[in-house]
Amino acid sequence: MSSDSQYTFQGWAARDNDDYKGSLKLQSFDPKPWDEDDVDVRIMYCGICGSDVHVLSGAFFPVSAMAPLICGHELVGEVIRVGSQVENGLEVGTIVGVGAVSNSCRECEYCVEECEVFCKKRTTTYAGVFHRGNGAGYKTKGGYASHWRGPSAFAYPIPAGYDPACAAPMMCAGITVFSALRRFGAGVTAKQVGVIGIGVTTISRGEAKRQEAAKLGSSNYIAVSDDVATSVKGCERTLDLVICCTGGSYTDYLKLLKPRGTFVQAAIGTSPVPISNISLITGGLTIVGALADGKAEYKDMFDFAAKHNIKPWINRWDMKDINKALPAFTNGEAKYRMVLVNTENGGSL
Amino acid sequence: MSSDSQYTFQGWAARDNDDYKGSLKLQSFDPKPWDEDDVDVRIMYCGICGSDVHVLSGAFFPVSAMAPLICGHELVGEVIRVGSQVENGLEVGTIVGVGAVSNSCRECEYCVEECEVFCKKRTTTYAGVFHRGNGAGYKTKGGYASHWRGPSAFAYPIPAGYDPACAAPMMCAGITVFSALRRFGAGVTAKQVGVIGIGVTTISRGEAKRQEAAKLGSSNYIAVSDDVATSVKGCERTLDLVICCTGGSYTDYLKLLKPRGTFVQAAIGTSPVPISNISLITGGLTIVGALADGKAEYKDMFDFAAKHNIKPWINRWDMKDINKALPAFTNGEAKYRMVLVNTENGGSL
Repeated sequence: MSSDSQYTFQGWAARDNDDYKGSLKLQSFDPKPWDEDDVDVRIMYCGICGSDVHVLSGAFFPVSAMAPLICGHELVGEVIRVGSQVENGLEVGTIVGVGAVSNSCRECEYCVEECEVFCKKRTTTYAGVFHRGNGAGYKTKGGYASHWRGPSAFAYPIPAGYDPACAAPMMCAGITVFSALRRFGAGVTAKQVGVIGIGVTTISRGEAKRQEAAKLGSSNYIAVSDDVATSVKGCERTLDLVICCTGGSYTDYLKLLKPRGTFVQAAIGTSPVPISNISLITGGLTIVGALADGKAEYKDMFDFAAKHNIKPWINRWDMKDINKALPAFTNGEAKYRMVLVNTENGGSL
Repeated sequence: MSSDSQYTFQGWAARDNDDYKGSLKLQSFDPKPWDEDDVDVRIMYCGICGSDVHVLSGAFFPVSAMAPLICGHELVGEVIRVGSQVENGLEVGTIVGVGAVSNSCRECEYCVEECEVFCKKRTTTYAGVFHRGNGAGYKTKGGYASHWRGPSAFAYPIPAGYDPACAAPMMCAGITVFSALRRFGAGVTAKQVGVIGIGVTTISRGEAKRQEAAKLGSSNYIAVSDDVATSVKGCERTLDLVICCTGGSYTDYLKLLKPRGTFVQAAIGTSPVPISNISLITGGLTIVGALADGKAEYKDMFDFAAKHNIKPWINRWDMKDINKALPAFTNGEAKYRMVLVNTENGGSL
């Protein structure tokens, strides 16, 4: 089943490393050439991820090399066109989410295990290049846009009744933490879990989030200052598992871990973190990069989240105000996950 | 059962950070005051561990603060005196090994699980301080010596027929690698195992060890130069598990790991290693500090080693030549683990 294409793809594009400071431009763009397993999605919501800003600031490559660069890998919207070989049971009208990966080879050992994120040919949802069908060679465009086109296999249905605005941050931030908590036995083998961000034990800058952390069910709070080493004194060797949702140096946070404890780094940072062999060895500590596997985990996460009514707290911003939203994000004003809203596509502010 | 003490404790002592370059002095010393669960051991062999040299060079504290500093935590010898409360079934004449830890509280959650290495009150075999009985406050002296006195619970019987010279390096180097290989599923969940040092896949400087690695059963060899990043090209994403037995930077070795692979750091280094968040996260990699738990693992290791006739290749040095052995070690002349031999105590060169 397919429908015609009476709509224009438009996105908020960067052309230079400074544009994220308030100079993204809305422009029309050509979507990838159509393949019969593609879908078109009318984007209602897209979360802002810290890695978007890293990419937009040129931390990994000059933005000009991928211009027009349209970021966003936490997009949620309504399917408005499906190809004859559509997957995931999608139909026109299905609400779907797309995360950081939009394609893979479908054949390698990782794809077979639904760990597409490790496929050598995986395609990132923006600033990637498709290796497939009619769209081969196309530079991917993400969710800071009106529409998205890509392989239906990587568009995951959002459960009925789950707020699609809340589903947006689940596509990257949510799945990453869900994957880490489950993989490392939170609540099962790891009883004392800390999250740098908000968690059972919340570890956060200053006192600002203490009350909110409690509302979210967090039973302990460790307020840290710029001097993390001093801030964690008295809490050493108390946690089995720490999930770190900030991208800076985490060296001093390792002290919070019990022997044989696990530190999960969930946020991309741009500077290497100096790790002492000695503290690693004498504590028998584990440091691990958090990365959700792929398909199977999305389904499990949404099943779990829908069943237990778990959803993120978010700050909604009109996507038209993206040139205010991104500077607010980089100034640390994002109290919760920021979600861009396309009201004309059915998104609610 | 006890015997009289017609012997003098002598050890090769350092007083300053430079003494390891060839100026250790043989001197008599008072052993810890006797406790009834102690044993006296006539030392036959003691391995030289890289961390001995770190300590002797003042990397962790000025040597003068612990002078006379007598290193060595891979000691093997014959029990020549036991107290009335001796443990581990030791008797006069038992051949025992002592590793890096010589006491612990015996009560905390880690001690109860025989993970004494994580006990907050653990006592290192040298440069530590006993917290117990008559010996409380005594600064520990290690195996570069004629005799050792300490808690019998931390002196492990060596299996009958196992060469006690080969048992010496098993007390630290051996147990560390055994523990890591077992814990991380070598041969079970981790099929492709690399060891920086010598292993199934051997990763070593230059070509010098290629033939020996093959003799030791290693099926692959990756020769690395100072430019590790270039050396590992073509071998990226091939190994499930890498055990690193050198103490330098391992950043470039991480590229050898398959997605979700595990890198075990087994050797203490003195400089922090810069770890990229990005490579950690995009590979879903795990970095973990290797540290053997304690008692139970020693028993399992020696059972396994004796059953399968697994023993290290070693270079024997007369302990009297320690002032030549240590400079040879620091000059990279240690082809295999260096073991100091006390011929007058029954050790064989």
